[in-house]
Amino acid sequence: MTAEQDPGSPEAMPPPERNPIALQTTRMEAFSDGVFAIAITLLVLEIKVPVDRGSDLLHALIEQWPSYLAYFISFCTIGAVWMAHSAITDLLDRVDALLLRINLLLLLLVGLLPIPTALAAEYLKSTDGERVAVTIYGLTLLAIRLVVLLLWKYASAEGLVRTDLDDAALDEVTAKLTPSLGLYVVAIAVGLAAPSIAVVLYLAIALYIIIPLRSILSAFRRTAP
Amino acid sequence: MTAEQDPGSPEAMPPPERNPIALQTTRMEAFSDGVFAIAITLLVLEIKVPVDRGSDLLHALIEQWPSYLAYFISFCTIGAVWMAHSAITDLLDRVDALLLRINLLLLLLVGLLPIPTALAAEYLKSTDGERVAVTIYGLTLLAIRLVVLLLWKYASAEGLVRTDLDDAALDEVTAKLTPSLGLYVVAIAVGLAAPSIAVVLYLAIALYIIIPLRSILSAFRRTAP
Amino acid sequence: MTAEQDPGSPEAMPPPERNPIALQTTRMEAFSDGVFAIAITLLVLEIKVPVDRGSDLLHALIEQWPSYLAYFISFCTIGAVWMAHSAITDLLDRVDALLLRINLLLLLLVGLLPIPTALAAEYLKSTDGERVAVTIYGLTLLAIRLVVLLLWKYASAEGLVRTDLDDAALDEVTAKLTPSLGLYVVAIAVGLAAPSIAVVLYLAIALYIIIPLRSILSAFRRTAP
Amino acid sequence: MTAEQDPGSPEAMPPPERNPIALQTTRMEAFSDGVFAIAITLLVLEIKVPVDRGSDLLHALIEQWPSYLAYFISFCTIGAVWMAHSAITDLLDRVDALLLRINLLLLLLVGLLPIPTALAAEYLKSTDGERVAVTIYGLTLLAIRLVVLLLWKYASAEGLVRTDLDDAALDEVTAKLTPSLGLYVVAIAVGLAAPSIAVVLYLAIALYIIIPLRSILSAFRRTAP
Repeated sequence: MTAEQDPGSPEAMPPPERNPIALQTTRMEAFSDGVFAIAITLLVLEIKVPVDRGSDLLHALIEQWPSYLAYFISFCTIGAVWMAHSAITDLLDRVDALLLRINLLLLLLVGLLPIPTALAAEYLKSTDGERVAVTIYGLTLLAIRLVVLLLWKYASAEGLVRTDLDDAALDEVTAKLTPSLGLYVVAIAVGLAAPSIAVVLYLAIALYIIIPLRSILSAFRRTAP
Repeated sequence: MTAEQDPGSPEAMPPPERNPIALQTTRMEAFSDGVFAIAITLLVLEIKVPVDRGSDLLHALIEQWPSYLAYFISFCTIGAVWMAHSAITDLLDRVDALLLRINLLLLLLVGLLPIPTALAAEYLKSTDGERVAVTIYGLTLLAIRLVVLLLWKYASAEGLVRTDLDDAALDEVTAKLTPSLGLYVVAIAVGLAAPSIAVVLYLAIALYIIIPLRSILSAFRRTAP
Repeated sequence: MTAEQDPGSPEAMPPPERNPIALQTTRMEAFSDGVFAIAITLLVLEIKVPVDRGSDLLHALIEQWPSYLAYFISFCTIGAVWMAHSAITDLLDRVDALLLRINLLLLLLVGLLPIPTALAAEYLKSTDGERVAVTIYGLTLLAIRLVVLLLWKYASAEGLVRTDLDDAALDEVTAKLTPSLGLYVVAIAVGLAAPSIAVVLYLAIALYIIIPLRSILSAFRRTAP
Repeated sequence: MTAEQDPGSPEAMPPPERNPIALQTTRMEAFSDGVFAIAITLLVLEIKVPVDRGSDLLHALIEQWPSYLAYFISFCTIGAVWMAHSAITDLLDRVDALLLRINLLLLLLVGLLPIPTALAAEYLKSTDGERVAVTIYGLTLLAIRLVVLLLWKYASAEGLVRTDLDDAALDEVTAKLTPSLGLYVVAIAVGLAAPSIAVVLYLAIALYIIIPLRSILSAFRRTAP
């Protein structure tokens, strides 16, 4: 198709002017930012406004807590993936054909996330179907984090990253992207027995990823005498 | 996770080349602009076209005034927040991990706004539930303005702003972001007794924020002899 | 609020570094492009897929022609407004507080367009309500073009345009933005008597605006011997 | 309307400063990226979460396979068109009035794609209407690829591409954009007799376009001894 780069050919790593169909990272960033921004905003469409519940509106809204919880978890997940994606693409020097496809796979999963989110919200209150819904939700969250790691692993293995970065810097990024995978596997396994606990764990993972503990701690240390 | 900057470490404020996972402000701007643009456009989905009202269509549309009023208030609010956000990020020199999260919190609230908007539109005509709906709407508007102020306060306290700005310039921005907070608190308090008046006040605040009185006045003064 | 510029003050037209809250045109372009892109794509949500019409699906789809016609007219209108907006902002040197608000008013109308579009599509087949729906649709299209012209008139009157442009260039832009206004007024007036003809006229105006007759003619002339 | 360029006039190819209403490619890229990103993300709205199916939720989800299949095919198609569009606009030196309109036609078809996608998903399980739905879906996919090719043919014929590209490079792009057209024609023809097979073929074409076989093969060859 289009946008092919053949990094394995003898004249590997040609100057961008030579390859007529090399893609800049800027275009991939713009398109990905668009999909992330839309997917994170479309999540709200799954929350329905209670109709004809005027006499007990507050109660009706509180009953909807699973929708708000699922919204929050998915929002944090997409937000964290956007931050990881930004950090990764900032380190990229160029893009090749396969990286673009891995990126599309990531966007496909992020674009689908509203469905498992709505599924979890719909069946979290019910006893039937809760396990199926929660497990599918967890598997989607895990798959998204896996593809983010794959994106980074591929880019660093293929030498698409900036040349001014040393191995320690690359390893640091890998170390930051990896831990959540294990946590999701544990949460999904727990969910097979106790779905409600799995959702609490998904929330905990989202908060763990999104809250910059190190920054807060160092800010505290700085202000302490 | 990703995109960490540790401004408290001994080698504080390193050149961007040194920190492999520093984020540029451009990426945060692009993502935020996307969410603002989508949230402001999704507001329209809460307005439903009257079906099978051919014989009294104009009347059916006029009956929908709460939907159009809520659309207008929320549109002005997001528009004003976008302008404030643009002004703030224009003053930023760099972004750190915590600022990114405060920004995500802002986007979460802005992304949720269609729900309280639809809630207010739905229950504005009814006597039951009007107070709850209007109060939740006001609290969301207040929360959004609060997080905008927090974003600015954090950025200026942490020294993330451009070095060519003096304290007077920073204070001017703070002075512009603050007044609406008090107005919203008053409007929400009024709404506990008289919800309809609160909505009029929300509209007045939105207009006060969005209409550039000073510019219009100075334009008048200029054209006057 | 924010992003104020006071072009009437004695120290008019300060270098951008001096004014801490001057907005670049780039940010307004990015936000507007986002709203245009979303509004033009959301139009599709008003087209419903026929359900349970397997035995006469083609017929059911053909029956939906008002939806497709309204989609096409509104798509062309937003597309043309986007082109006009791009041309205008390309000529801008800077943005002031009032221009940002006029731009927000334009985005508010463009963001609302899916509603009059769906209204026209819904009532185009019915005898009742057709006149009301078609007139509201036409008034919205007219209002959008009016605000585009206002945006340009304000920018050129306030000296916000690039200094390398002469009056002839500015007049040419005005001349291109003006004619559609009169056409819409005529079409709306016709629609009060014959709504169906008004829709045909809206379509004709959209095609007239969107089809670059001059370019096609000059291309023909070039290829002719 | 706006953004006219008259490349056939005697003073052809003026410096951009001379033509007050020449459009940069950046703005067309930003708007198109927005529409592509939104259309690809809106596809998810056609997938409905099963309601009240708690006791057999997994079964209910599996029953929805046509929705997921159509989502996947359309996602790959828009993803591939985005990559082709990025490759083409990267080669552009400038944009003219007609190219902007061809681009709008492409965006119109991409923006409409959620409808044929939902149509195919809705009628894929049923015997009635399947042929009509699948053929309309295929024709839309074909039309999208045709307009992408038209965009490129026009740009290269009108000399809008970068001057540092030789004919071989241009031909390579044409060669990459062409083959899928024939495949779609075959698939649509097959679908008139056997609609289900046509959908399998659409899937195969999407995978053929999206999977960078050459890159994978060359990567294998590189790692082989």
